[in-house]
Amino acid sequence: MKCIVRVEVRLKKGFHDPEGVTALSCLRDLGFKQIVDVKSGKVYYLTIEAQTKEDVLKIAEQACTKLLSNPVKDEYNISIIECTE
Amino acid sequence: MKCIVRVEVRLKKGFHDPEGVTALSCLRDLGFKQIVDVKSGKVYYLTIEAQTKEDVLKIAEQACTKLLSNPVKDEYNISIIECTE
Repeated sequence: MKCIVRVEVRLKKGFHDPEGVTALSCLRDLGFKQIVDVKSGKVYYLTIEAQTKEDVLKIAEQACTKLLSNPVKDEYNISIIECTE
Repeated sequence: MKCIVRVEVRLKKGFHDPEGVTALSCLRDLGFKQIVDVKSGKVYYLTIEAQTKEDVLKIAEQACTKLLSNPVKDEYNISIIECTE
């Protein structure tokens, strides 16, 4: 089967998020006074070919720990979007 | 009310995604032969204070068109994650 998996990588609580801070500052300069916080993160859509959904999730998990996220400062979550046989 | 809104920004189909290409190449070099495609994008969590959910969504939409996305090359979607009164 071939599955599309969404991986979202965000900074753990307590880590400084300069992109979020800058985006918030820009938005408020543009007049968006109702926006009071911005946190930023990355999203990846992986297309994975494997025998089972369990294998797909295991591969996505390994991709996160080995490349897509930094275990010291990032947290991630993985969800299968769609699969075709 | 105060709501947390998730905004996901991705390249429209047909636009070159060098970060996705590089991530795919790295993953395959690491041995992930089952991963056949990677697309990358950005995610933002906006905290917005407004009277109604409709107002929250309108503000998020404006934030996307004015700063967070490039209408020429990006597509985005907006979803409310949680609200408190």
